[in-house]
Amino acid sequence: MASEPFDAVSVIRTKRDRGRIPDPEIDWVIDAYTRGVVAEEQMAALAMAILLNGMAPDELARWTEAMIGSGSRLDLSGVNRPTTDKHSTGGVGDKITLPLAPLVAACGAAVPQLSGRGLGHTGGTLDKLESIPGWRAALSNAEFIAQLNSVGAVICAAGDGLAPADKKLYALRDVTGTVEAIPLIASSIMSKKIAEGAASLVLDVKVGTGAFMRTRADARKLAETMVALGSAAGTHTVALLTDMNTPLGLAVGNALEVTESVQVLAGGGPPDVVELTVTLAKEMLAGVGITDVDPADALADGRAIDGWRAMIAAQGGDPDAPLPLAG
Amino acid sequence: MASEPFDAVSVIRTKRDRGRIPDPEIDWVIDAYTRGVVAEEQMAALAMAILLNGMAPDELARWTEAMIGSGSRLDLSGVNRPTTDKHSTGGVGDKITLPLAPLVAACGAAVPQLSGRGLGHTGGTLDKLESIPGWRAALSNAEFIAQLNSVGAVICAAGDGLAPADKKLYALRDVTGTVEAIPLIASSIMSKKIAEGAASLVLDVKVGTGAFMRTRADARKLAETMVALGSAAGTHTVALLTDMNTPLGLAVGNALEVTESVQVLAGGGPPDVVELTVTLAKEMLAGVGITDVDPADALADGRAIDGWRAMIAAQGGDPDAPLPLAG
Repeated sequence: MASEPFDAVSVIRTKRDRGRIPDPEIDWVIDAYTRGVVAEEQMAALAMAILLNGMAPDELARWTEAMIGSGSRLDLSGVNRPTTDKHSTGGVGDKITLPLAPLVAACGAAVPQLSGRGLGHTGGTLDKLESIPGWRAALSNAEFIAQLNSVGAVICAAGDGLAPADKKLYALRDVTGTVEAIPLIASSIMSKKIAEGAASLVLDVKVGTGAFMRTRADARKLAETMVALGSAAGTHTVALLTDMNTPLGLAVGNALEVTESVQVLAGGGPPDVVELTVTLAKEMLAGVGITDVDPADALADGRAIDGWRAMIAAQGGDPDAPLPLAG
Repeated sequence: MASEPFDAVSVIRTKRDRGRIPDPEIDWVIDAYTRGVVAEEQMAALAMAILLNGMAPDELARWTEAMIGSGSRLDLSGVNRPTTDKHSTGGVGDKITLPLAPLVAACGAAVPQLSGRGLGHTGGTLDKLESIPGWRAALSNAEFIAQLNSVGAVICAAGDGLAPADKKLYALRDVTGTVEAIPLIASSIMSKKIAEGAASLVLDVKVGTGAFMRTRADARKLAETMVALGSAAGTHTVALLTDMNTPLGLAVGNALEVTESVQVLAGGGPPDVVELTVTLAKEMLAGVGITDVDPADALADGRAIDGWRAMIAAQGGDPDAPLPLAG
């Protein structure tokens, strides 16, 4: 084994003793963990120390940068529209991504949405779309860019190349009681989102009994932390705190949620889902300077549902196929 | 895999959130870790949470009991003398065990000393004795009891059966920056010492720049914690805080330290080593009610050096062999 410039135990001790991990050691520990030189049990101890002792803002920014640097950053320079993305921190019934991406695309921006699978009881966006016959989540990089130019909206599976350190660390946190650390949550989300390369990002931070952040204070802290990380990385970032004390809309279940999204995009649907979708769409458009288009008009005049049909068809899905009754 | 009554993440969360781990969960997490069901990364996160958030006294007593219960407890009921043991928390130049065991045996008690190998720069007691030609560290249980009855002193290698949970946990702490946790240090030492089964135990807690505990306050806290654990387990336990700002004696090196021990046992040797040896011997004897014998007399009249020769010979060593010049 090649000799390593630092030692995991000394990095752990620094954070354990409430110190600030020096930049070169942050870079090293993330890289060495990705390479398997820093062991899972060492990163687990470090994660618990971070959870209990926190991180300074500039320390966390460097940590996030190192996570991005563990993989590649998407190059969206070939996209012919301004790129804008959103992320919801999750919770029961997050169903905004499905109508939002085609709606924002219908208003003139490009939305590159790389999504994951469901965790626990919360179905992931990909799981929902896979209830549509023929639809496929995996796209090549060329297909991805082409679809952003033609349709303006892509929802597809994130490849292994984006922030691989986060992928390992997320799985580790899940089994070591270290999920609930605001610095680790923020850097996990932001490393992936920044690596996706959109110029602008809107964060939808859920708060309430159905959400990951139970209190408004925690949600605000998470939102502020993520906005600071986005800004430090040169991504225009804003955050909205949205209420999750009751799940949005009426439908629960992958196919039912797709049906509800179609209703929203066709100008109907539950008023609370419509309202949040329009609010987030406006923020996403504002982030790239598009302020002269009202997303509510696009829902009413058919542009949004046309965008949905184009987005589904471009990934092999049949927008007219009947959906399964369960799942 | 058989279903488990508890979940490691929930145990970790309890300690992470400054709670008291319920007794059945303590028993389970130690047992499940020993069986490999609780993973190294989970125990690492728990160890860091214990280091940073501490343990209540009764919680730590239960933890220690569970560590003892992960293996077997030595049965010393066949020993025909009162049994008394000592432990030094270590530091540079701990060299008291070698003269102490035969000295206390020469005064009428039995000293069952199960020792380990050296860690880092500190040579272990076994490493020192192995510089004597022919001497062997491994004894069967029957040989161990027989030697306690005939010679009264045994220094030998600890088997795998004593507190196996501690063996795993110690190795884990070493690579995860969680060595320096007083509850974990105390339960590690005391689980092994209690499992060794002596009726009485004297703890020699080193303090100072050359020792594991740098400050008097830390050393006192460690000493108090260990005494409480010993007493809770029914082992008569006392602790002495001894200065380690300068290494004891003059000799450093395995063979040189054996030579120095022989000098002490023959009535000579460095005054600081003699003084600490006599002090600890008196405490070990007092712990089993022997107060009418002065260990200083045994050093002066040849009983102590006779005890040493008998102890070395019983384990195959040649007490008259010349020792190697280095090592």
